[in-house]
Amino acid sequence: MGRKESIGIGLMGLGVVGGGVAKALTERAEAIAAQVGCPLRLRKILERDLAKTRASKMEPHLFTTDAAEVIGDPEIDIIIEALGGERPAFDFIKEAMGRGKHVVTSNKEVMAKHFPELLSLAKEKGVDILYEASVGGGIPLIAPFKQDLSANEISAIHAIINGTTNYILTRMAAEGLDFSSALKQAQKLGYAEADPTNDIEGIDAAYKLAILATLAFHTEVRPDDVYHEGISRLSSRDFRYARELGYAIKLLAIAKEKDGSIEVRVHPVFIPEDLLLAKVDGVYNAVQVEGDLVGRVLFYGQGAGALPTSSAVVADVINLAQRIKLGVSITPSLRLDPTKKIKPISEIETRYYIRMSTQDRPGVLAQISKILGDHLISISSVIQKETDVAAQVAEIVIMTYPARESAMRKALNEIERLEVVKEVSNFVRVED
Amino acid sequence: MGRKESIGIGLMGLGVVGGGVAKALTERAEAIAAQVGCPLRLRKILERDLAKTRASKMEPHLFTTDAAEVIGDPEIDIIIEALGGERPAFDFIKEAMGRGKHVVTSNKEVMAKHFPELLSLAKEKGVDILYEASVGGGIPLIAPFKQDLSANEISAIHAIINGTTNYILTRMAAEGLDFSSALKQAQKLGYAEADPTNDIEGIDAAYKLAILATLAFHTEVRPDDVYHEGISRLSSRDFRYARELGYAIKLLAIAKEKDGSIEVRVHPVFIPEDLLLAKVDGVYNAVQVEGDLVGRVLFYGQGAGALPTSSAVVADVINLAQRIKLGVSITPSLRLDPTKKIKPISEIETRYYIRMSTQDRPGVLAQISKILGDHLISISSVIQKETDVAAQVAEIVIMTYPARESAMRKALNEIERLEVVKEVSNFVRVED
Repeated sequence: MGRKESIGIGLMGLGVVGGGVAKALTERAEAIAAQVGCPLRLRKILERDLAKTRASKMEPHLFTTDAAEVIGDPEIDIIIEALGGERPAFDFIKEAMGRGKHVVTSNKEVMAKHFPELLSLAKEKGVDILYEASVGGGIPLIAPFKQDLSANEISAIHAIINGTTNYILTRMAAEGLDFSSALKQAQKLGYAEADPTNDIEGIDAAYKLAILATLAFHTEVRPDDVYHEGISRLSSRDFRYARELGYAIKLLAIAKEKDGSIEVRVHPVFIPEDLLLAKVDGVYNAVQVEGDLVGRVLFYGQGAGALPTSSAVVADVINLAQRIKLGVSITPSLRLDPTKKIKPISEIETRYYIRMSTQDRPGVLAQISKILGDHLISISSVIQKETDVAAQVAEIVIMTYPARESAMRKALNEIERLEVVKEVSNFVRVED
Repeated sequence: MGRKESIGIGLMGLGVVGGGVAKALTERAEAIAAQVGCPLRLRKILERDLAKTRASKMEPHLFTTDAAEVIGDPEIDIIIEALGGERPAFDFIKEAMGRGKHVVTSNKEVMAKHFPELLSLAKEKGVDILYEASVGGGIPLIAPFKQDLSANEISAIHAIINGTTNYILTRMAAEGLDFSSALKQAQKLGYAEADPTNDIEGIDAAYKLAILATLAFHTEVRPDDVYHEGISRLSSRDFRYARELGYAIKLLAIAKEKDGSIEVRVHPVFIPEDLLLAKVDGVYNAVQVEGDLVGRVLFYGQGAGALPTSSAVVADVINLAQRIKLGVSITPSLRLDPTKKIKPISEIETRYYIRMSTQDRPGVLAQISKILGDHLISISSVIQKETDVAAQVAEIVIMTYPARESAMRKALNEIERLEVVKEVSNFVRVED
């Protein structure tokens, strides 16, 4: 059997994720050793925040503030990067692989921005890099794409992969809260950061979608390729109409491939309320995948937090350690097809929900429908309600049949210029 | 790089699963070769049914009716067993491993009954056996248990792993059908077999649960260890009461571990209607797992059918082929803890729903509650309805707090002997 007496681990970062990982590795050392065939030894922890190292129960001699001490330690086989953020994490990962270390990372930003480079480097250096925790916390997602679904042509991913926004939308839907109150609640409970931009604008979800789409479609999808739009424009009125029409509103990360052309986008979506995805509430995540053999599968669980994330990180560590112990070197197999094109958002086709505030007088709907018709957009249903009888203001909600985004944008511009239209209050894409 | 020019495949069985696998391997040969690094070659197909071989588009020279020709072929590296049933599949698998072949199987019965033996034999012979398709069709389940969730202590599995019964229960719930009509519908649509015993009595689900529980708890769980009870006693009345009380009725496969003691059981269950598992309808399957790190995760998809099952089989084949191509031999790591005990059904504790037909006169409920109280069973809610005023018949439904199964059985025996009780129509366990 294997050639090593123990496997050396270096940990970078003792924050929420790193702290959880250190605890899990320590507390379940025996069970992990039984799985690997030898013990894992945590040899160095990089942490510059002295408050964190002092508060930690780890032995003080493990700590260093110098990354080179971790990367250069010949006793370390696997480096766990739990720093987050692009720099210096990306540099450390590259240096570590350059020194022949295997890497486990939970860093979505680094993986989303540098996927092909890191996998090529790993291949060149004869090491592996695993990143299960970078998307969906502890939910198995990366490994299923790499292995279990590998026989499939994947046609679509519909994913709730940001817990903060899903929590906010759940509160808005259940309690009729407006966006800013729901955000404040989320911040109070620690589900949203003081600066929530990355979450509520869909940037976090775009990173994660870039990783999933790259794996699913075997093509490089960069975060910049992902169209993203946040949830702050949604109002309690939109939720009321959604319910009336039989829909839920979710911030979805959507990736589709058709005829070699890929669309990748993150934005609020109306989805039929009887879809399983519509019932994923609170901080939970879910990723629905469509493959030509497997059909529709869905993975559900907690997408963040110290424990779920450490579940994924430690599983990756065990996986690598087992291979090291067996003396097996498997480098990542990278198969990227450069011929696929990313479709700009203007070219997508989807159904739309449009909510407008108009004057309450005859002929308004006729003017609006004419503009839509001119742009070849067909209406599937209309709700018109008086909202202020005295001021003669009405609200019109239109659901359309599939239309091209560019046509819809032009139509909405023209509709907004109509004298009888006070404003186009919101429009939301619809997925069936 | 690897030592082989191609990987030889032998296929046993060209039924629903085998036919789907042959088609997938043929149609996507190029994509699979790109993933493996060399082509896979289907070298022999065992099929005794001449009608099937004649209807097949596979080249006639591939077919044999002699298993030894497949097992003995030196060009074959991986044997796919898609025969189903315990014998002769089990013998063929053992012989194949004895000849140094890796095995991929979709055979739940063989895996459930012979798990430790097959994994020990694989280890001894330096080969691997993969069986992702044996549970949940194409839904990634086995690999997640072996890898992604490997850092967790698993405490519970709640699974819908039989599509036939879930389809029947969905029709009963949605349309108020009785069991026999719903079964006939399922048979008409090909979702249930002419002899549906294995499905509706929970035997199929018990096989699958034995496999999942063995993996989750690192202990041998045999099909005989799994208590199973079918769905034929459920009536449309039970579904009406379930809805009234806020529950759905599902045939669940449940495995739990607490303090080194394991309970494994398949039976109808009341589950709260807002659980995601309650919304899994039709022939779909879902497996909910609770781990101490990851929390609650759920995997959802089609649990049967040629395409979903071949998704799992071909993924296993690709996985093995990649390792063969790299010259890597990884045998299964088998870690079974013999100290854990299987709890008999009489010792489980759960809540219960009880439906009784009684005389409609004063004091009936008092007599029933007294018996429950004598057995330390507390009532959480009661519904009493007149069902036949003329005959003075009433129906009483009782929901209890957690009670021990043995106490409940005794109490029900005594209740049935009460003069005022016409019958205990049904009792169903409740999971929250």
